[in-house]
Amino acid sequence: MSFQKPKGTQDLLPGVVERWQYIEEKARDLCRRFNYREIRTPIFEQTSLFERGVGETTDIVEKEMYTFLDKGDRSMTLRPEGTAGVVRSYVENKLYGEPDVSKLYYIGPMFRYERPQAGRQRQFHQFGIEAFGATDPAIDAEVVALGYQYCRELGLQGVKVEINSVGNPAVRAAYRETLLGFLMPMKDTLCKDCQSRMERNPLRVLDCKVDQAKFEGAPSILDSLDEECSIHFAKVQELLTAMEVDYVINHRLVRGLDYYTHTAFEYKAQGIGAIDTIGGGGRYNGLVAEVGGPDQPGIGLGLGLERIALILEKQEIEMGEVKPLDVYFVALGEAADKEITTQLYRIRQAGYSAERDYLGRKMKAQMKSAERMQARYTAILGEDELERGEIALKSMESGEQRTVKLSELANELK
Amino acid sequence: MSFQKPKGTQDLLPGVVERWQYIEEKARDLCRRFNYREIRTPIFEQTSLFERGVGETTDIVEKEMYTFLDKGDRSMTLRPEGTAGVVRSYVENKLYGEPDVSKLYYIGPMFRYERPQAGRQRQFHQFGIEAFGATDPAIDAEVVALGYQYCRELGLQGVKVEINSVGNPAVRAAYRETLLGFLMPMKDTLCKDCQSRMERNPLRVLDCKVDQAKFEGAPSILDSLDEECSIHFAKVQELLTAMEVDYVINHRLVRGLDYYTHTAFEYKAQGIGAIDTIGGGGRYNGLVAEVGGPDQPGIGLGLGLERIALILEKQEIEMGEVKPLDVYFVALGEAADKEITTQLYRIRQAGYSAERDYLGRKMKAQMKSAERMQARYTAILGEDELERGEIALKSMESGEQRTVKLSELANELK
Repeated sequence: MSFQKPKGTQDLLPGVVERWQYIEEKARDLCRRFNYREIRTPIFEQTSLFERGVGETTDIVEKEMYTFLDKGDRSMTLRPEGTAGVVRSYVENKLYGEPDVSKLYYIGPMFRYERPQAGRQRQFHQFGIEAFGATDPAIDAEVVALGYQYCRELGLQGVKVEINSVGNPAVRAAYRETLLGFLMPMKDTLCKDCQSRMERNPLRVLDCKVDQAKFEGAPSILDSLDEECSIHFAKVQELLTAMEVDYVINHRLVRGLDYYTHTAFEYKAQGIGAIDTIGGGGRYNGLVAEVGGPDQPGIGLGLGLERIALILEKQEIEMGEVKPLDVYFVALGEAADKEITTQLYRIRQAGYSAERDYLGRKMKAQMKSAERMQARYTAILGEDELERGEIALKSMESGEQRTVKLSELANELK
Repeated sequence: MSFQKPKGTQDLLPGVVERWQYIEEKARDLCRRFNYREIRTPIFEQTSLFERGVGETTDIVEKEMYTFLDKGDRSMTLRPEGTAGVVRSYVENKLYGEPDVSKLYYIGPMFRYERPQAGRQRQFHQFGIEAFGATDPAIDAEVVALGYQYCRELGLQGVKVEINSVGNPAVRAAYRETLLGFLMPMKDTLCKDCQSRMERNPLRVLDCKVDQAKFEGAPSILDSLDEECSIHFAKVQELLTAMEVDYVINHRLVRGLDYYTHTAFEYKAQGIGAIDTIGGGGRYNGLVAEVGGPDQPGIGLGLGLERIALILEKQEIEMGEVKPLDVYFVALGEAADKEITTQLYRIRQAGYSAERDYLGRKMKAQMKSAERMQARYTAILGEDELERGEIALKSMESGEQRTVKLSELANELK
């Protein structure tokens, strides 16, 4: 009997996993500089949290969730995205009681039962940030800029930011009517999903991949913005310019649910054909209250790490290399074999990486291993050297070999 | 409607999450030095993998798994431990075809439906390593030593290693008969679980927490070892001594399943009362074949990070501190407010962490924020300074304040 990984999941093996370590380290370092701190919430949550926090009319909740009963017959769901759990945690742990804005980031696996394709997995990974407690456009601009700067620092080519304002609930209610006036005459020509969305959530019709071309002449939500919303949006743009963010306005970029307000944005990148959105986010001033918290504003972004990893690969971008091995030990004879155990222990304790053979191979095969591992040095211990308390140290780059005291070995590796 | 995290799960918030970052960074650095490379396998796997790889007679598989049907009616299970998925991946990706020993590590969440208690969660986290392809006792010793050194480098006090040999299948079959001879006369006095284990898997009776005292006089498996097993075990001990590992032999430390061979070990630490095992591992020369792979030997260890985090806290061990903020910007007036957006952008790009106010607070409240964030500097920009292209830079430690050119600010932070 042999086993395969589940469809839509991946094994990240040595040689590939380093790309992920690099992507994550960059995110952590960026968050340090922007003063966002990590939060880790559970892999699964009560199903009702996502129904409420993601929205019951969304594809995610309707079609894509991994939902199960636990042994206590409670309905649980593997998190399909990162925001709902963070908002739940913000409310449950009363972080809104702290004097400063809560600036949080997360990195981790999410789960959606979708058809797997390049850059889209059933277990996928997101880097996201959430900022709670402030309505200042400076935080909108910061969040948008952080995602942009992340893509730039990773070295992604051709990154564009699209931004829009979805106003406030009153603005959106008015726009909804205007939009329905535009859509009604073409209703019969739209796809089934769009027809259903028209009734429940007409703004989401504009997201449709099938009918997109038909919406070229759709009215713009920006024409419905009131003064407060316009000022907020103008200020966000001014600050994005101050931070050298390369953005364009896309008035059809909407997020349909009622708790979304003001700024909405997406990141696009060249290099993976049809899938060109690598993430996005928006302000959600109604969401914290929606999941039972106080009336606190929030804004966040989420980036798909599979897509970023794929683009980095396609764009052939250099990433943090595997650190070479510092020293590979070769023992000749049984007494030497025991001594290199002690030496491995000491060298590793001194902070260096060290390796040996575990397969009883001949010296020549061991030297090949050292080369494969890109060892800086090989350290060869024979019986004669052992008797004198010495070891032969060979630089793998220069080929130069010298004899050093065993007790001085760690110093010689500097 | 408000939401709680699922029972047996945790939110790791800023202030606590740094302890986890520290624990994980230590593990990664240690693995680098020991030349183990990361592998990431999916959060869930086919249920049958765990039935085969963990063992159908184990408590984990019988009682504790989070098992569900996906939307394609396939039985999936959230991984209850780390080894089975890594072995599946080793086989599926044919890593056994590589010339060197596969030395792998993982860090991540695992799931068991157990009664939550201090240091035991339903979603818990393990750091583990697996080494495939070598039978050399040097690798047994290295694996045991890595876990020990990890505990030491974290600063855990009073760490002990218990080791044993469970021999090979022939040795264990003989010992099984000897052990049954000892247990039979007391069968009626044993707990129900033990009575059932006696029939299916008598070695596991020795693990029983309820009846432990009754097994003081049980025969030792070490007396059943053949010559090959004895030599292997002696060599492991010799190498552990060479690496200064503080170990004791516990002949009742057994792993009952047939694919365990030779070395078995556990780590114990003072400081969490009844729960004193923080992890363990063993050699499993039969496991790779058991899950459909070639006949390749393996050995691994797993450590419970919740328990380690708890002991670190109880032993009041100093951990990597939160990095202080480099600079907190205070703007006086609207023009200055816009300028500090540009300054934040530049300073963060230069590698420093920087923060500002997003709540329209007065200067005094902003200075308090800077103190709470342990800022090294505050940078105060008023209209006069702005006109001169300067900014006031105040050291929060010394209280000293000086005026610097805006264009020189990044240099001044060094």
